[in-house]
Amino acid sequence: MRDFLPEEAKFMKYIEGKARRTAQLYGYGEIITPVLESYELLATKAGEEIRVRMYAFKDLGGRKVALRPEFTASIARLVANVLRNEPKPLRMFCVGSLYRYDEPQQGRFREFWQSNYELMGSIKPEADTEIIMLTNSLMKAAGLKKSVFKVGHVGVLREILSQEKVEDEVQNGIMQLMDKKHYDDALRLVEKAAVSEKCLKTLRRLVKVRGGNVSEVLDKMEGYVEGYERAVDAVRNLREILEFVLDSEEEIDVTVEAGFARGLEYYTGMIFEVYAPEVSTALGGGGRYDKLIELFGGEPTPAVGVAHGIDRIMLAMQKQNTTLEREEEKTVAVIPTKEELKEEELKISRMLRSADISVEVEVMGRKVGKALEDADRRKIDYAIIVGEREMKEGAVVIRNLKRREQKIVKIENLIKIIKGQA
Amino acid sequence: MRDFLPEEAKFMKYIEGKARRTAQLYGYGEIITPVLESYELLATKAGEEIRVRMYAFKDLGGRKVALRPEFTASIARLVANVLRNEPKPLRMFCVGSLYRYDEPQQGRFREFWQSNYELMGSIKPEADTEIIMLTNSLMKAAGLKKSVFKVGHVGVLREILSQEKVEDEVQNGIMQLMDKKHYDDALRLVEKAAVSEKCLKTLRRLVKVRGGNVSEVLDKMEGYVEGYERAVDAVRNLREILEFVLDSEEEIDVTVEAGFARGLEYYTGMIFEVYAPEVSTALGGGGRYDKLIELFGGEPTPAVGVAHGIDRIMLAMQKQNTTLEREEEKTVAVIPTKEELKEEELKISRMLRSADISVEVEVMGRKVGKALEDADRRKIDYAIIVGEREMKEGAVVIRNLKRREQKIVKIENLIKIIKGQA
Repeated sequence: MRDFLPEEAKFMKYIEGKARRTAQLYGYGEIITPVLESYELLATKAGEEIRVRMYAFKDLGGRKVALRPEFTASIARLVANVLRNEPKPLRMFCVGSLYRYDEPQQGRFREFWQSNYELMGSIKPEADTEIIMLTNSLMKAAGLKKSVFKVGHVGVLREILSQEKVEDEVQNGIMQLMDKKHYDDALRLVEKAAVSEKCLKTLRRLVKVRGGNVSEVLDKMEGYVEGYERAVDAVRNLREILEFVLDSEEEIDVTVEAGFARGLEYYTGMIFEVYAPEVSTALGGGGRYDKLIELFGGEPTPAVGVAHGIDRIMLAMQKQNTTLEREEEKTVAVIPTKEELKEEELKISRMLRSADISVEVEVMGRKVGKALEDADRRKIDYAIIVGEREMKEGAVVIRNLKRREQKIVKIENLIKIIKGQA
Repeated sequence: MRDFLPEEAKFMKYIEGKARRTAQLYGYGEIITPVLESYELLATKAGEEIRVRMYAFKDLGGRKVALRPEFTASIARLVANVLRNEPKPLRMFCVGSLYRYDEPQQGRFREFWQSNYELMGSIKPEADTEIIMLTNSLMKAAGLKKSVFKVGHVGVLREILSQEKVEDEVQNGIMQLMDKKHYDDALRLVEKAAVSEKCLKTLRRLVKVRGGNVSEVLDKMEGYVEGYERAVDAVRNLREILEFVLDSEEEIDVTVEAGFARGLEYYTGMIFEVYAPEVSTALGGGGRYDKLIELFGGEPTPAVGVAHGIDRIMLAMQKQNTTLEREEEKTVAVIPTKEELKEEELKISRMLRSADISVEVEVMGRKVGKALEDADRRKIDYAIIVGEREMKEGAVVIRNLKRREQKIVKIENLIKIIKGQA
């Protein structure tokens, strides 16, 4: 667990704000679910890997609870219950902290923050497209100069294995090895499952197919999976999704990877991750999961969603030297030359704040010189010195701490000067 | 624990945004501390009442941890350690969820949200004033039409008891009864502590002193505590704080209450709470606690702070029918008349979003009529219908769903029309 001091917290909250605005721009309503949920709910559909790393305990009422390791279970609970009869599509956004007892490493912490978007009720490729596009919008809104999408489709591999009658559990094992890029181990597992020669050959070729020339890669994939009808459908579905993406005129960098898998078992269709070149872990990832809501007791509800790691986006922003908006907002310290002018100082502060200007008042009772020194150290832009002589004329001294210039100005002109309109 | 669906989550995040902006306007840097902290840290200074209601457990590493029941311990930890050598004043803001295993009741939940402001390093009354004023600014920023401050000073009662040599623990007991407004029980406890007749008489008169005429109430208090020198100092300190508050030209409603106490034992000076007439529990409360940082192993550091209940502010806003800013932001649904126009639809959506307009695209493949019906139900402002005939002219149909009017417009004029500039 870690603390974020102001410099970093500013980044985190900035990204959260951008994520929220992106949600609004795409019509996603925000929901807030509890950090603490029933253990059973969270454990049911989480993979083994997540389940054993949950912070689980009994509350004072003897109920087994846990800190959420992801948002999906909570959202599925809502969709299966309170929102059961809500007309579709349902677009939902949430953002908050999640918990996993991992060994800390670069970009991975036991408490981490995600923004999460879910689009429920649509089986259409444009729904998948939307989730990819809003992720791209968020990356751009956060000011990232470069991000790359890796896209795949679990249907391609799974449908081949299904047609070869490989059991779901074996499939899960194969997909997990694929996810870890242990392709040889994965193929050995396929071999053991007594599949046809053709299947093995197809998979061997497939796992090597990847590249940024989307239609070329998709052509190749479609050729390779010939004869596996539903796998062909999967490739076509992926093609539809990506055609919408690439035709949208939005700048986006996409790589298709036929052997791409994601750790979680609940994906049923398109899957993707987004990376920044400077960060080794994905900044976000998601995909289609059409069976999950049913598993939580809800109506059959197709769904596609994505989660973004806010701390990882921050890392990428820092490595890309991204500048935040509002960074240029001016800050002011107001300093009275003596105790008796405290009230005047407070009045001026209030006036400036009403004009949406950030103001620090002097609360240490320091001499002007000391207070100025401190304001300078903390990179405040302007000091306003409230002195008796000037006050008699309805004026104060304003000092530009960066330029080390000062002048006497009428109080009524202060706001204009600070806002740079005078 | 509860979920917040979009209608309520919007309020929560709106208040959080206002709290953040208030922090910026007063120069408070945001920090983020973990939800999960060491049990020992959280338990050390929490009163018994809070301690027994903590969500505490052992993590997978065998370390005893708990969900934070308040922010103060985490902040004290930071100030005592990482920020130990940071020059003062230190202004810190944080916002997040807190956890107490209480019996749920109106305005009280097991998971609740607070915004928290701490000003460290100043013993001056203007520091206390600042904390009251920023609370007032937040209430106004949240759009509350009416809020009332109840202000007191624990020094008044405690210094009398100290001068009468009443032990700290007995004092704590007395203050707790005062906090619960059990004045008779409190006075009986005072009697048992073998204090002077004068002390009893003073306290009996004091607990009845309250009112909105601040200087009159303070005069009365100062008269009553005569002979208890440090209690007189406490009243004078309170007078200084409140004179700054009332002279600030900010509209504020203050009631002084001499017998006012707050549950937590760490307060050493001015204390206050803010109420809305429509909600029985306080929307926020705070005060001065000059000894706490030391108790956490830090340098002696005077401090004053406040915490606001975000869910309670929401309750007050709802009861006062507060309208949120940005509520008037226009929303748009883009609907193609047939599948083949999907790409055009996505391009138009993208263009509108680039202009900061909220857009929902059609992802259900519904006929125009159905999609319009749904947009209407969800109170969308405009529907843009992308049809083949109009597209040939570079135009679309825009339908004002509230006025039930529609017209054909050129795509390049859409943004202006939706933003109301045409």
